[in-house]
Amino acid sequence: MKGKFITLEGCEGAGKSRQMQLLTQFFDKKGIEYISTREPGGTPVAERIRSVILSRENENMSDECEVLLYAAARADHLKNRVIPALNEGKTVICDRFIDSSFAYQAYARGIGYEVVAAANRYAFENCMPDITLFLDISPEDAFSRKGGADSGDRIEAAGMEFHKRVYAGYLALAEKFPERIVKIECMGARERTHANIVEALYARGIIDR
Amino acid sequence: MKGKFITLEGCEGAGKSRQMQLLTQFFDKKGIEYISTREPGGTPVAERIRSVILSRENENMSDECEVLLYAAARADHLKNRVIPALNEGKTVICDRFIDSSFAYQAYARGIGYEVVAAANRYAFENCMPDITLFLDISPEDAFSRKGGADSGDRIEAAGMEFHKRVYAGYLALAEKFPERIVKIECMGARERTHANIVEALYARGIIDR
Repeated sequence: MKGKFITLEGCEGAGKSRQMQLLTQFFDKKGIEYISTREPGGTPVAERIRSVILSRENENMSDECEVLLYAAARADHLKNRVIPALNEGKTVICDRFIDSSFAYQAYARGIGYEVVAAANRYAFENCMPDITLFLDISPEDAFSRKGGADSGDRIEAAGMEFHKRVYAGYLALAEKFPERIVKIECMGARERTHANIVEALYARGIIDR
Repeated sequence: MKGKFITLEGCEGAGKSRQMQLLTQFFDKKGIEYISTREPGGTPVAERIRSVILSRENENMSDECEVLLYAAARADHLKNRVIPALNEGKTVICDRFIDSSFAYQAYARGIGYEVVAAANRYAFENCMPDITLFLDISPEDAFSRKGGADSGDRIEAAGMEFHKRVYAGYLALAEKFPERIVKIECMGARERTHANIVEALYARGIIDR
């Protein structure tokens, strides 16, 4: 049987990395076979593309180029990592996926939903997540938790106004795809957020109780 | 006035580099303002993408990924180099462009013309070459001149059958776009080929006699 495809989404500082970790520990305990991966990246080729995208030297990269690079990394990641794992019956847990392209590029950079969808269509092979867990915390709250944008990569440096648009983009996506995207309340302790995630996976039938 | 956009195309070993050089020397002598560039590459971002594409480590890169990477490099190259130069009235001479994607990926790898066109549509902004000079020499003749495929990058190592398909792709493109693509006879000496190129530029009104 084909495995389940789970993606985690959220603004910078929402706590995705920590929740990825808690989720894999939970899967270990449950004895569920999984792989844990991330975008952009997840294959040697896609990781090299990631380093091109995130490098500070490349600040004047055109929007079109950036959209196509994310799509290229996604194409390789899907073909060489995600789809083979799903076909082996493994659950795939992925830190960021297509919704990041929509939230960051389509909405926050103003490139538009249809344009990003078109550039990604070719990468896809109809492999959409079974569930997308959106860590629903505003960028103000997330940044105050993380310590601000004074360090980090090109995207983190783009400023608070940008991140507010990203957050608004995620909210719009959650409204557009309610059957796939679940908003996860995450203002409390990490363990509370983790419990909310596990509850969502049960409620949507992604894992058995 | 907008500058002219000239691209050079051909199989491996057709002598493009040498003809690029002779053409820029000719433009220098004529006092025509130009920039000389290449694909994939031509901007810092696109050159980094080029190194991802051509690296031998990445031999299992998916076709979809490769198509999107070329399109990404092209998007940045057009926006940050080619279009600004054309807008300044400069002639742009480019070693490989969209027809390489068609010949190598659409035809030789069998990805199909429409798919490559779709992936590239977003990169384009309607900036097609005013003339494309296709160095029309069969891969057998080109390779015997160059010394075979025992060294070089990933694409050069793909073998003679592949290069025959590339050549057939170029011939199909020349048939499809006769108003843009000019077949350049190039079995003779380099200087003879160069003279054929210059004659084509005059004949098509790209430069004044």
